[in-house]
Amino acid sequence: MKALVLLSGGQDSTTCLYWALREYGKENVSAFGFDYGQRHIEELKYAQAICDELGISFVIQSLPTVSEMTENALTRSDIQVDNSYDGSAPPNTLVEGRNLIFLTYAAIYAKKRGIKVLVTGVSQADYSGYPDCRDVFIKSTNVTLSLGLDYPFLIETPLMWRDKAQVWALARELGVLDIIKEKTLTCYNGVPGEGCGDCPACNLRSWGYEGFVRDEQRI
Amino acid sequence: MKALVLLSGGQDSTTCLYWALREYGKENVSAFGFDYGQRHIEELKYAQAICDELGISFVIQSLPTVSEMTENALTRSDIQVDNSYDGSAPPNTLVEGRNLIFLTYAAIYAKKRGIKVLVTGVSQADYSGYPDCRDVFIKSTNVTLSLGLDYPFLIETPLMWRDKAQVWALARELGVLDIIKEKTLTCYNGVPGEGCGDCPACNLRSWGYEGFVRDEQRI
Repeated sequence: MKALVLLSGGQDSTTCLYWALREYGKENVSAFGFDYGQRHIEELKYAQAICDELGISFVIQSLPTVSEMTENALTRSDIQVDNSYDGSAPPNTLVEGRNLIFLTYAAIYAKKRGIKVLVTGVSQADYSGYPDCRDVFIKSTNVTLSLGLDYPFLIETPLMWRDKAQVWALARELGVLDIIKEKTLTCYNGVPGEGCGDCPACNLRSWGYEGFVRDEQRI
Repeated sequence: MKALVLLSGGQDSTTCLYWALREYGKENVSAFGFDYGQRHIEELKYAQAICDELGISFVIQSLPTVSEMTENALTRSDIQVDNSYDGSAPPNTLVEGRNLIFLTYAAIYAKKRGIKVLVTGVSQADYSGYPDCRDVFIKSTNVTLSLGLDYPFLIETPLMWRDKAQVWALARELGVLDIIKEKTLTCYNGVPGEGCGDCPACNLRSWGYEGFVRDEQRI
Protein backbone atom coordinates (compact mmCIF):
# COMPACT_ATOMS: atom_id res chain seq x y z
CA MET A 1 0.00 0.00 0.00
CA LYS A 2 1.18 3.50 -0.83
CA ALA A 3 0.91 6.23 1.81
CA LEU A 4 0.76 10.03 1.59
CA VAL A 5 1.95 11.95 4.65
CA LEU A 6 0.48 15.40 5.30
CA LEU A 7 3.73 17.14 6.14
CA SER A 8 4.14 20.63 7.58
CA GLY A 9 7.73 20.52 8.76
CA GLY A 10 6.74 20.57 12.43
CA GLN A 11 7.47 18.02 15.14
CA ASP A 12 4.23 16.04 14.80
CA SER A 13 3.98 15.58 11.05
CA THR A 14 7.72 14.94 10.69
CA THR A 15 7.49 12.20 13.32
CA CYS A 16 4.56 10.79 11.32
CA LEU A 17 6.72 10.78 8.20
CA TYR A 18 9.32 8.56 9.87
CA TRP A 19 6.54 6.39 11.28
CA ALA A 20 5.17 5.94 7.74
CA LEU A 21 8.62 5.01 6.43
CA ARG A 22 8.77 2.24 9.01
CA GLU A 23 5.19 1.04 8.42
CA TYR A 24 4.92 1.32 4.63
CA GLY A 25 8.52 1.32 3.40
CA LYS A 26 10.36 4.21 1.79
CA GLU A 27 9.43 3.24 -1.76
CA ASN A 28 5.73 3.64 -0.89
CA VAL A 29 5.82 6.96 0.96
CA SER A 30 5.44 10.47 -0.38
CA ALA A 31 4.57 13.77 1.29
CA PHE A 32 2.16 16.63 0.65
CA GLY A 33 2.05 20.07 2.26
CA PHE A 34 0.21 23.36 2.04
CA ASP A 35 1.15 26.98 1.69
CA TYR A 36 -1.97 28.53 3.20
CA GLY A 37 -0.43 31.76 4.37
CA GLN A 38 0.68 30.37 7.73
CA ARG A 39 2.84 32.82 9.71
CA HIS A 40 5.50 30.13 10.14
CA ILE A 41 5.76 29.47 6.38
CA GLU A 42 9.44 28.68 7.00
CA GLU A 43 8.29 25.28 8.27
CA LEU A 44 7.88 24.11 4.66
CA LYS A 45 11.62 24.60 4.04
CA TYR A 46 12.33 22.23 6.89
CA ALA A 47 9.86 19.72 5.45
CA GLN A 48 11.50 20.03 2.03
CA ALA A 49 15.00 19.55 3.47
CA ILE A 50 13.95 16.39 5.32
CA CYS A 51 12.32 14.93 2.18
CA ASP A 52 15.32 15.86 0.03
CA GLU A 53 17.64 14.09 2.44
CA LEU A 54 15.38 11.01 2.44
CA GLY A 55 14.93 11.17 -1.34
CA ILE A 56 11.12 11.17 -1.22
CA SER A 57 8.67 13.33 -3.12
CA PHE A 58 7.24 16.43 -1.42
CA VAL A 59 4.60 18.51 -3.19
CA ILE A 60 3.47 21.87 -1.80
CA GLN A 61 -0.01 22.99 -2.80
CA SER A 62 -0.90 26.66 -2.49
CA LEU A 63 -4.20 27.29 -0.77
CA PRO A 64 -5.02 31.01 -0.69
CA THR A 65 -8.72 30.55 0.10
CA VAL A 66 -8.20 29.37 3.68
CA SER A 67 -6.61 32.61 4.88
CA GLU A 68 -8.98 34.71 2.75
CA MET A 69 -11.97 33.19 4.52
CA THR A 70 -10.90 32.86 8.13
CA GLU A 71 -9.70 35.41 10.65
CA ASN A 72 -7.09 33.93 12.93
CA ALA A 73 -3.65 34.60 14.32
CA LEU A 74 -2.04 31.78 12.35
CA THR A 75 -2.56 33.21 8.87
CA ARG A 76 -3.06 36.91 9.64
CA SER A 77 -0.01 38.90 10.56
CA ASP A 78 -2.23 41.70 11.92
CA ILE A 79 -3.66 39.40 14.63
CA GLN A 80 -1.36 38.65 17.59
CA VAL A 81 -1.09 35.06 18.84
CA ASP A 82 -2.92 34.93 22.18
CA ASN A 83 -0.64 33.14 24.65
CA SER A 84 -3.23 32.92 27.42
CA TYR A 85 -5.08 29.80 26.26
CA ASP A 86 -6.99 28.34 29.24
CA GLY A 87 -9.23 25.78 27.51
CA SER A 88 -12.46 27.77 27.91
CA ALA A 89 -12.69 28.66 24.19
CA PRO A 90 -10.70 27.68 21.10
CA PRO A 91 -7.39 29.57 20.82
CA ASN A 92 -7.14 32.39 18.28
CA THR A 93 -4.70 30.31 16.21
CA LEU A 94 -7.61 28.04 15.22
CA VAL A 95 -8.08 28.03 11.44
CA GLU A 96 -11.70 26.91 11.03
CA GLY A 97 -12.09 23.84 8.84
CA ARG A 98 -8.37 23.58 8.13
CA ASN A 99 -7.90 19.85 8.59
CA LEU A 100 -10.96 18.98 6.51
CA ILE A 101 -9.72 21.14 3.65
CA PHE A 102 -6.19 19.73 3.95
CA LEU A 103 -7.44 16.15 4.00
CA THR A 104 -9.83 16.72 1.09
CA TYR A 105 -7.12 18.14 -1.17
CA ALA A 106 -4.71 15.43 -0.03
CA ALA A 107 -7.36 12.82 -0.92
CA ILE A 108 -7.85 14.32 -4.39
CA TYR A 109 -4.08 14.28 -4.92
CA ALA A 110 -3.76 10.74 -3.54
CA LYS A 111 -6.55 9.18 -5.59
CA LYS A 112 -4.99 10.41 -8.83
CA ARG A 113 -1.81 8.53 -7.88
CA GLY A 114 -3.44 5.35 -6.59
CA ILE A 115 -2.60 6.17 -2.96
CA LYS A 116 -5.18 4.99 -0.40
CA VAL A 117 -3.47 5.76 2.91
CA LEU A 118 -3.40 9.33 4.24
CA VAL A 119 -1.22 9.93 7.32
CA THR A 120 -1.90 12.95 9.51
CA GLY A 121 -0.33 14.05 12.79
CA VAL A 122 -3.47 15.26 14.57
CA SER A 123 -3.81 14.33 18.22
CA GLN A 124 -6.78 14.26 20.51
CA ALA A 125 -4.51 13.85 23.56
CA ASP A 126 -3.10 17.37 23.05
CA TYR A 127 -5.95 18.76 21.04
CA SER A 128 -5.72 22.26 22.48
CA GLY A 129 -9.33 23.12 21.70
CA TYR A 130 -9.14 22.35 17.97
CA PRO A 131 -12.30 20.34 17.18
CA ASP A 132 -10.82 19.07 13.92
CA CYS A 133 -8.06 17.18 15.77
CA ARG A 134 -10.49 14.82 17.51
CA ASP A 135 -10.66 11.14 16.65
CA VAL A 136 -14.40 11.17 15.92
CA PHE A 137 -13.91 13.97 13.39
CA ILE A 138 -11.14 12.05 11.61
CA LYS A 139 -13.25 8.88 11.48
CA SER A 140 -16.18 10.82 10.08
CA THR A 141 -13.88 12.49 7.53
CA ASN A 142 -12.57 9.06 6.51
CA VAL A 143 -16.13 7.98 5.66
CA THR A 144 -16.99 11.27 3.94
CA LEU A 145 -13.89 11.22 1.73
CA SER A 146 -14.36 7.57 0.78
CA LEU A 147 -17.98 8.27 -0.21
CA GLY A 148 -17.33 11.62 -1.90
CA LEU A 149 -14.45 10.40 -4.03
CA ASP A 150 -15.75 6.84 -4.28
CA TYR A 151 -12.37 5.49 -3.22
CA PRO A 152 -11.41 3.38 -0.17
CA PHE A 153 -9.24 5.76 1.84
CA LEU A 154 -7.61 4.85 5.14
CA ILE A 155 -6.65 7.79 7.35
CA GLU A 156 -3.85 6.86 9.72
CA THR A 157 -3.30 8.96 12.86
CA PRO A 158 -0.28 7.54 14.69
CA LEU A 159 -0.28 10.39 17.25
CA MET A 160 -4.00 10.42 18.06
CA TRP A 161 -3.68 9.16 21.63
CA ARG A 162 -0.14 10.36 22.38
CA ASP A 163 0.58 13.51 24.34
CA LYS A 164 3.61 15.57 23.37
CA ALA A 165 5.92 13.61 25.71
CA GLN A 166 4.81 10.39 24.02
CA VAL A 167 5.41 11.93 20.58
CA TRP A 168 9.02 12.57 21.64
CA ALA A 169 9.19 8.96 22.87
CA LEU A 170 7.99 7.77 19.45
CA ALA A 171 10.74 9.79 17.76
CA ARG A 172 13.29 8.08 19.96
CA GLU A 173 11.77 4.67 19.23
CA LEU A 174 12.04 5.47 15.50
CA GLY A 175 15.69 6.49 15.96
CA VAL A 176 15.14 10.09 14.86
CA LEU A 177 15.08 12.03 18.12
CA ASP A 178 17.92 14.35 17.10
CA ILE A 179 16.45 14.98 13.65
CA ILE A 180 13.09 15.95 15.17
CA LYS A 181 14.80 18.13 17.79
CA GLU A 182 17.00 20.00 15.37
CA LYS A 183 15.50 19.84 11.91
CA THR A 184 11.82 20.63 12.46
CA LEU A 185 10.00 23.90 12.99
CA THR A 186 6.98 24.06 15.28
CA CYS A 187 7.27 27.65 16.55
CA TYR A 188 4.58 30.13 15.43
CA ASN A 189 7.31 32.77 15.25
CA GLY A 190 9.32 30.73 12.75
CA VAL A 191 12.29 29.84 14.98
CA PRO A 192 13.47 26.26 14.24
CA GLY A 193 14.39 23.56 16.77
CA GLU A 194 13.70 24.75 20.30
CA GLY A 195 11.90 27.80 18.91
CA CYS A 196 11.23 31.21 20.43
CA GLY A 197 10.29 29.60 23.73
CA ASP A 198 7.35 31.94 24.14
CA CYS A 199 4.45 31.04 21.80
CA PRO A 200 1.84 28.36 22.57
CA ALA A 201 3.43 25.91 20.09
CA CYS A 202 6.85 26.28 21.75
CA ASN A 203 5.35 25.96 25.21
CA LEU A 204 3.62 22.72 24.25
CA ARG A 205 6.75 21.36 22.55
CA SER A 206 9.12 22.13 25.43
CA TRP A 207 6.59 21.04 28.07
CA GLY A 208 6.33 17.74 26.20
CA TYR A 209 10.10 17.39 25.93
CA GLU A 210 10.57 17.94 29.65
CA GLY A 211 7.92 15.28 30.34
CA PHE A 212 9.69 12.90 27.97
CA VAL A 213 13.06 13.44 29.70
CA ARG A 214 11.43 12.88 33.12
CA ASP A 215 9.83 9.65 31.88
CA GLU A 216 13.20 8.48 30.52
CA GLN A 217 14.94 9.12 33.83
CA ARG A 218 12.24 7.18 35.68
CA ILE A 219 12.80 4.07 33.54
CA MET B 1 -33.26 29.85 11.47
CA LYS B 2 -31.00 31.44 8.87
CA ALA B 3 -30.18 29.55 5.68
CA LEU B 4 -27.33 29.82 3.19
CA VAL B 5 -28.04 28.61 -0.35
CA LEU B 6 -25.13 27.33 -2.44
CA LEU B 7 -26.01 29.10 -5.65
CA SER B 8 -24.45 28.58 -9.07
CA GLY B 9 -27.00 30.27 -11.31
CA GLY B 10 -28.17 26.99 -12.82
CA GLN B 11 -31.62 25.44 -12.79
CA ASP B 12 -31.15 23.28 -9.69
CA SER B 13 -29.57 25.71 -7.27
CA THR B 14 -31.84 28.58 -8.37
CA THR B 15 -34.89 26.40 -7.73
CA CYS B 16 -33.39 25.67 -4.29
CA LEU B 17 -33.06 29.39 -3.67
CA TYR B 18 -36.80 29.92 -4.20
CA TRP B 19 -37.53 26.84 -2.11
CA ALA B 20 -35.44 28.34 0.72
CA LEU B 21 -37.31 31.65 0.45
CA ARG B 22 -40.58 29.78 0.99
CA GLU B 23 -39.24 27.60 3.82
CA TYR B 24 -37.12 30.10 5.75
CA GLY B 25 -38.44 33.52 4.71
CA LYS B 26 -36.62 36.10 2.64
CA GLU B 27 -35.13 37.90 5.64
CA ASN B 28 -33.30 34.71 6.65
CA VAL B 29 -31.88 33.65 3.29
CA SER B 30 -28.55 34.54 1.70
CA ALA B 31 -26.56 32.94 -1.10
CA PHE B 32 -22.96 31.86 -1.64
CA GLY B 33 -21.23 30.86 -4.87
CA PHE B 34 -17.83 29.88 -6.21
CA ASP B 35 -15.62 31.00 -9.03
CA TYR B 36 -13.60 27.81 -9.46
CA GLY B 37 -12.68 28.28 -13.09
CA GLN B 38 -15.84 26.60 -14.42
CA ARG B 39 -16.19 26.86 -18.20
CA HIS B 40 -19.69 28.28 -17.78
CA ILE B 41 -18.53 31.06 -15.46
CA GLU B 42 -21.32 33.20 -16.96
CA GLU B 43 -23.70 31.29 -14.67
CA LEU B 44 -22.60 33.48 -11.75
CA LYS B 45 -23.95 36.58 -13.53
CA TYR B 46 -27.35 34.93 -13.68
CA ALA B 47 -27.12 34.08 -10.00
CA GLN B 48 -26.16 37.65 -9.19
CA ALA B 49 -29.04 39.07 -11.25
CA ILE B 50 -31.58 36.85 -9.49
CA CYS B 51 -30.26 37.83 -6.05
CA ASP B 52 -30.18 41.52 -6.98
CA GLU B 53 -33.80 41.35 -8.08
CA LEU B 54 -34.78 39.58 -4.86
CA GLY B 55 -32.65 41.92 -2.76
CA ILE B 56 -30.69 39.17 -1.03
CA SER B 57 -26.96 38.92 -0.39
CA PHE B 58 -24.81 36.88 -2.80
CA VAL B 59 -21.12 36.40 -2.10
CA ILE B 60 -18.79 34.81 -4.67
CA GLN B 61 -15.68 33.13 -3.29
CA SER B 62 -12.78 32.50 -5.63
CA LEU B 63 -11.40 28.98 -5.43
CA PRO B 64 -8.37 28.56 -7.71
CA THR B 65 -7.11 25.37 -6.06
CA VAL B 66 -9.91 23.15 -7.37
CA SER B 67 -9.04 23.61 -11.03
CA GLU B 68 -5.30 23.56 -10.28
CA MET B 69 -5.62 20.13 -8.73
CA THR B 70 -8.13 18.30 -10.89
CA GLU B 71 -8.15 17.52 -14.59
CA ASN B 72 -11.66 17.66 -15.99
CA ALA B 73 -13.66 19.14 -18.83
CA LEU B 74 -15.58 21.49 -16.54
CA THR B 75 -12.64 23.67 -15.48
CA ARG B 76 -10.15 22.99 -18.26
CA SER B 77 -10.80 24.60 -21.59
CA ASP B 78 -8.28 22.26 -23.25
CA ILE B 79 -10.42 19.20 -22.38
CA GLN B 80 -13.55 18.69 -24.48
CA VAL B 81 -16.81 17.78 -22.74
CA ASP B 82 -17.51 14.13 -23.55
CA ASN B 83 -21.14 13.88 -24.65
CA SER B 84 -21.22 10.10 -24.76
CA TYR B 85 -21.92 9.43 -21.07
CA ASP B 86 -23.35 5.91 -20.73
CA GLY B 87 -23.14 5.38 -16.95
CA SER B 88 -20.21 2.94 -17.05
CA ALA B 89 -17.72 5.46 -15.60
CA PRO B 90 -18.00 9.00 -14.17
CA PRO B 91 -18.30 11.64 -16.93
CA ASN B 92 -15.24 13.76 -17.69
CA THR B 93 -17.01 16.82 -16.28
CA LEU B 94 -16.61 15.34 -12.78
CA VAL B 95 -14.57 17.67 -10.56
CA GLU B 96 -13.26 15.35 -7.85
CA GLY B 97 -14.17 16.44 -4.34
CA ARG B 98 -15.99 19.55 -5.53
CA ASN B 99 -19.10 19.34 -3.36
CA LEU B 100 -17.12 18.61 -0.21
CA ILE B 101 -14.90 21.62 -0.81
CA PHE B 102 -17.90 23.82 -1.64
CA LEU B 103 -19.79 22.70 1.46
CA THR B 104 -16.75 23.10 3.71
CA TYR B 105 -16.12 26.69 2.63
CA ALA B 106 -19.85 27.43 2.82
CA ALA B 107 -19.88 26.04 6.36
CA ILE B 108 -16.91 28.22 7.38
CA TYR B 109 -18.70 31.26 5.91
CA ALA B 110 -22.02 30.31 7.52
CA LYS B 111 -20.68 29.69 11.02
CA LYS B 112 -19.09 33.14 11.12
CA ARG B 113 -22.56 34.62 10.46
CA GLY B 114 -24.55 32.37 12.79
CA ILE B 115 -26.12 30.44 9.89
CA LYS B 116 -26.79 26.77 10.59
CA VAL B 117 -28.71 25.67 7.49
CA LEU B 118 -26.86 24.98 4.23
CA VAL B 119 -29.04 24.37 1.16
CA THR B 120 -27.58 22.52 -1.81
CA GLY B 121 -29.19 21.36 -5.06
CA VAL B 122 -27.51 17.98 -5.37
CA SER B 123 -29.71 15.10 -6.49
CA GLN B 124 -29.26 11.38 -6.26
CA ALA B 125 -32.17 10.80 -8.64
CA ASP B 126 -30.23 12.38 -11.52
CA TYR B 127 -26.78 11.87 -10.10
CA SER B 128 -25.10 11.22 -13.44
CA GLY B 129 -22.23 9.27 -11.93
CA TYR B 130 -21.10 11.99 -9.52
CA PRO B 131 -20.48 10.19 -6.19
CA ASP B 132 -20.63 13.46 -4.26
CA CYS B 133 -24.29 13.99 -5.19
CA ARG B 134 -25.49 10.92 -3.31
CA ASP B 135 -27.58 11.19 -0.17
CA VAL B 136 -25.24 9.08 1.95
CA PHE B 137 -22.33 11.37 1.08
CA ILE B 138 -24.31 14.47 2.07
CA LYS B 139 -25.37 12.90 5.39
CA SER B 140 -21.78 11.93 6.13
CA THR B 141 -20.63 15.45 5.22
CA ASN B 142 -23.25 16.90 7.56
CA VAL B 143 -21.74 14.92 10.45
CA THR B 144 -18.15 15.72 9.43
CA LEU B 145 -18.78 19.47 9.18
CA SER B 146 -20.66 19.60 12.48
CA LEU B 147 -17.79 17.78 14.22
CA GLY B 148 -14.98 19.62 12.43
CA LEU B 149 -16.36 23.10 13.06
CA ASP B 150 -18.06 22.14 16.33
CA TYR B 151 -21.31 23.71 15.13
CA PRO B 152 -24.74 22.10 14.55
CA PHE B 153 -25.15 22.35 10.79
CA LEU B 154 -28.21 21.11 8.92
CA ILE B 155 -27.68 20.39 5.22
CA GLU B 156 -30.95 20.65 3.30
CA THR B 157 -31.23 18.92 -0.10
CA PRO B 158 -34.71 19.69 -1.51
CA LEU B 159 -33.90 18.04 -4.85
CA MET B 160 -32.28 14.84 -3.55
CA TRP B 161 -35.02 12.48 -4.71
CA ARG B 162 -36.39 14.50 -7.62
CA ASP B 163 -35.48 13.81 -11.22
CA LYS B 164 -35.19 16.76 -13.59
CA ALA B 165 -38.89 16.62 -14.53
CA GLN B 166 -39.77 16.85 -10.84
CA VAL B 167 -37.40 19.79 -10.39
CA TRP B 168 -39.36 21.62 -13.10
CA ALA B 169 -42.56 20.66 -11.29
CA LEU B 170 -41.16 22.16 -8.07
CA ALA B 171 -40.40 25.41 -9.91
CA ARG B 172 -44.00 25.56 -11.07
CA GLU B 173 -45.24 24.80 -7.55
CA LEU B 174 -43.07 27.67 -6.27
CA GLY B 175 -44.50 29.97 -8.95
CA VAL B 176 -41.15 30.57 -10.65
CA LEU B 177 -41.29 28.33 -13.72
CA ASP B 178 -40.68 31.20 -16.15
CA ILE B 179 -37.84 32.63 -14.09
CA ILE B 180 -36.08 29.25 -14.00
CA LYS B 181 -36.69 28.71 -17.71
CA GLU B 182 -35.41 32.10 -18.80
CA LYS B 183 -33.07 33.47 -16.15
CA THR B 184 -30.83 30.54 -15.26
CA LEU B 185 -27.80 29.08 -17.01
CA THR B 186 -27.16 25.34 -16.91
CA CYS B 187 -25.39 24.87 -20.24
CA TYR B 188 -21.69 23.91 -20.15
CA ASN B 189 -21.20 26.11 -23.19
CA GLY B 190 -22.52 29.17 -21.39
CA VAL B 191 -25.77 29.63 -23.33
CA PRO B 192 -28.57 30.77 -20.97
CA GLY B 193 -32.16 29.49 -20.83
CA GLU B 194 -32.61 26.58 -23.20
CA GLY B 195 -28.85 26.46 -23.78
CA CYS B 196 -26.80 25.11 -26.69
CA GLY B 197 -29.01 22.03 -26.85
CA ASP B 198 -26.00 19.82 -27.32
CA CYS B 199 -23.99 19.36 -24.10
CA PRO B 200 -24.86 16.81 -21.36
CA ALA B 201 -26.25 19.55 -19.09
CA CYS B 202 -28.60 20.80 -21.84
CA ASN B 203 -29.67 17.29 -22.72
CA LEU B 204 -30.57 16.55 -19.11
CA ARG B 205 -32.39 19.88 -18.73
CA SER B 206 -34.47 19.56 -21.91
CA TRP B 207 -35.14 15.85 -21.35
CA GLY B 208 -36.46 16.79 -17.90
CA TYR B 209 -38.56 19.62 -19.28
CA GLU B 210 -40.18 17.34 -21.85
CA GLY B 211 -40.98 14.85 -19.11
CA PHE B 212 -42.49 17.62 -16.99
CA VAL B 213 -44.69 18.81 -19.88
CA ARG B 214 -45.85 15.24 -20.53
CA ASP B 215 -46.70 14.79 -16.82
CA GLU B 216 -48.66 18.05 -16.89
CA GLN B 217 -50.70 17.00 -19.91
CA ARG B 218 -51.50 13.69 -18.26
CA ILE B 219 -53.02 15.44 -15.21
